[in-house]
Amino acid sequence: MSLLRRSPEKIRLPKGFSFSAVTAGIKVSGRPDLALAEATDGATAAALFTTNRVVAAPVEVGRTALLSSGGRIRAVIVNSGNANCATGREGIRACERVCNDAGKLFGVTSAEVFPSSTGIIGVRFPADKICAKLPELISARLASEHGVLAFAHAIMTTDTRPKIASMRFHAGSKQVTILGIAKGAGMIHPQMATMLVYLFTDIGASSRELQPVLRGACEDSLNSMSIDGDTSTNDTALLLASGASGVRLKDAGTSKKFASALGAVCQSLAEQIISDGEGVQHVVRLFVEEARSKEEALQVARTIAHSMLVKTAWAGADPNWGRILAAVGRSGVPVDPSRVQIFIGSQKVCQNGAGCAFNEKRAHRTLAKPECDIRVRLGRGRQAVRFLTTDLTAEYVRINADYST
Amino acid sequence: MSLLRRSPEKIRLPKGFSFSAVTAGIKVSGRPDLALAEATDGATAAALFTTNRVVAAPVEVGRTALLSSGGRIRAVIVNSGNANCATGREGIRACERVCNDAGKLFGVTSAEVFPSSTGIIGVRFPADKICAKLPELISARLASEHGVLAFAHAIMTTDTRPKIASMRFHAGSKQVTILGIAKGAGMIHPQMATMLVYLFTDIGASSRELQPVLRGACEDSLNSMSIDGDTSTNDTALLLASGASGVRLKDAGTSKKFASALGAVCQSLAEQIISDGEGVQHVVRLFVEEARSKEEALQVARTIAHSMLVKTAWAGADPNWGRILAAVGRSGVPVDPSRVQIFIGSQKVCQNGAGCAFNEKRAHRTLAKPECDIRVRLGRGRQAVRFLTTDLTAEYVRINADYST
Repeated sequence: MSLLRRSPEKIRLPKGFSFSAVTAGIKVSGRPDLALAEATDGATAAALFTTNRVVAAPVEVGRTALLSSGGRIRAVIVNSGNANCATGREGIRACERVCNDAGKLFGVTSAEVFPSSTGIIGVRFPADKICAKLPELISARLASEHGVLAFAHAIMTTDTRPKIASMRFHAGSKQVTILGIAKGAGMIHPQMATMLVYLFTDIGASSRELQPVLRGACEDSLNSMSIDGDTSTNDTALLLASGASGVRLKDAGTSKKFASALGAVCQSLAEQIISDGEGVQHVVRLFVEEARSKEEALQVARTIAHSMLVKTAWAGADPNWGRILAAVGRSGVPVDPSRVQIFIGSQKVCQNGAGCAFNEKRAHRTLAKPECDIRVRLGRGRQAVRFLTTDLTAEYVRINADYST
Repeated sequence: MSLLRRSPEKIRLPKGFSFSAVTAGIKVSGRPDLALAEATDGATAAALFTTNRVVAAPVEVGRTALLSSGGRIRAVIVNSGNANCATGREGIRACERVCNDAGKLFGVTSAEVFPSSTGIIGVRFPADKICAKLPELISARLASEHGVLAFAHAIMTTDTRPKIASMRFHAGSKQVTILGIAKGAGMIHPQMATMLVYLFTDIGASSRELQPVLRGACEDSLNSMSIDGDTSTNDTALLLASGASGVRLKDAGTSKKFASALGAVCQSLAEQIISDGEGVQHVVRLFVEEARSKEEALQVARTIAHSMLVKTAWAGADPNWGRILAAVGRSGVPVDPSRVQIFIGSQKVCQNGAGCAFNEKRAHRTLAKPECDIRVRLGRGRQAVRFLTTDLTAEYVRINADYST
């Protein structure tokens, strides 16, 4: 299925969650910008955050909340239009105020309210606007497809479409459902890229049991992709488990099925995020193979995926394998160039570090498609990674250069 | 003086060198593409090469030649239009053939002929065309400004203008001259960026004495700049010393003067290269200050200078300091964000990691100029670097995405 023109995913609802969204007036566009996901009877949580040393207020507050609640979450409050980043102590206090107010309305401590923000950086956080809308937000919540769509739309910034994926599997006579909702690594116009991913499941598990499963699922999907190589200050992936399915993660035979389903949801979200990247015309599935370790395969993949020369060649569907080879050479991995092979689609274009005869027109046609596979074999070992990335287009520059202050 | 609209440099000729160029038919455009610089009585040499593990044939051949000639060079032969990279054993042999033929014509060993190539990668190297033109190239050589200009033009690829700088200083009653000629880090259309820098001086020095001076001069200039963060497979900086001035590098008081003059020539060439970068509309002088070491200052500078989000903001003259702060945060240097300050021109825009009141219109006007200064203070120590970089424009994408096979 084409990543760029995929049909909407079927939405499967996990038990124990409801969703809503309202317009709080944070976005200038007047579109919905405040979203709620509630675990009706609470949920256990695991989370991954940005590795950037500069982190937004909600990342600090959310991380602390998870520690002090022992990984117990009742509600997730997400706003778009303001990232609450580089806002100092005042930004932290504003975020805490939102969590406090929401906690009171739900009758839980503020540590059970998990905050996220995405949008413009360095602008005062409008806690007033958000707090004023909390009662309306809470009364609007629905345990339905409609609620999920409202949530998915309200967290969008430069995304052109909502990103939703879900999976269901059987565990004996019972069913476990996983639902994922994400916003993309497109920048808030014209500010900061942020990836937010929320995963909801009705499996039962402790926070401690969930964390490694979340990490594993993200490693090969959300952590193996890149649009522009910039790491946001707000990136967050949150997994909530309600337990309402009656199935426990530690039940015999369940953990493998769950990990696989969660991986599939994350992979789908990663593909949806990449294909909706700013100005993206081509999605590239980059396979780096024959590495000594997964780490070095990933290092080579990232160097290729972040090379402006490689990405601009892809924008022009130019089968310019020399730029890929040069990126491999400067990746820091001690590759022997005379062992490197490069494939565009199924055609070999570089053998033993030198060009080999290939059909350039066919390679151009392969690259001109909305998606294509590029394979780089390092001739060093048996490890491999699959990495999702994109071209770099003049449209990307236009979106991100637009002066709007 | 404006970097983007500088007037042509005055050319000062060091004694003992002559220059020429001819059209060998390598470039499709039919422009001159074969250049010669001859040290009439030979010269001692020092060189720096690309750190990419994938290196072009002339880099391998030139490096070996310097070792086997003991750093003695009679002639430099440079072609544009073909990089002789990723051309395998055949490419090495083709390069050696050119050096052999030239050596015979000069009556020296092939190891005293230093080869360079820039242009398309992965295409068979046309040694025949080059060898056929060597006699004409040699008979055309001139110890004049005209010869220098011919050389500077013939090594150009996507450069829009030749890059020449020279300095002269007195040592007692004698004069020492340094002349630098470079081609830019613009890509050969549509292939590979290459920076070639040739430095000629009439000071007397051994190869061993020259090497550290060359390294020092390049560190703060040619190695402290970046257009797109891609490292070419052909990058070369070569320094030749004829000794014809009668002044020796080890004469009392001379080495400091020489290092300073060589540094100034390299700095001028770096500025000329940056301002002629592909699609460049804005040159940014990035000052990273208050670092613990020069290395960490450079690491932060490189992360900022390679961030597509930062570079696209500069293209739009957008005073988006949040993107700069986020790049600092992901640089790998353990910066405390609450100590970071950012200045656009003379205005402080970020204080203690948070935004501070500033005149946005004035910041926009500062960034809209062809050149501007951006200063990032890390609050960690006393070390600083000055790093030259550029914006990322839609024109850069257009130049490098153009499919031309």
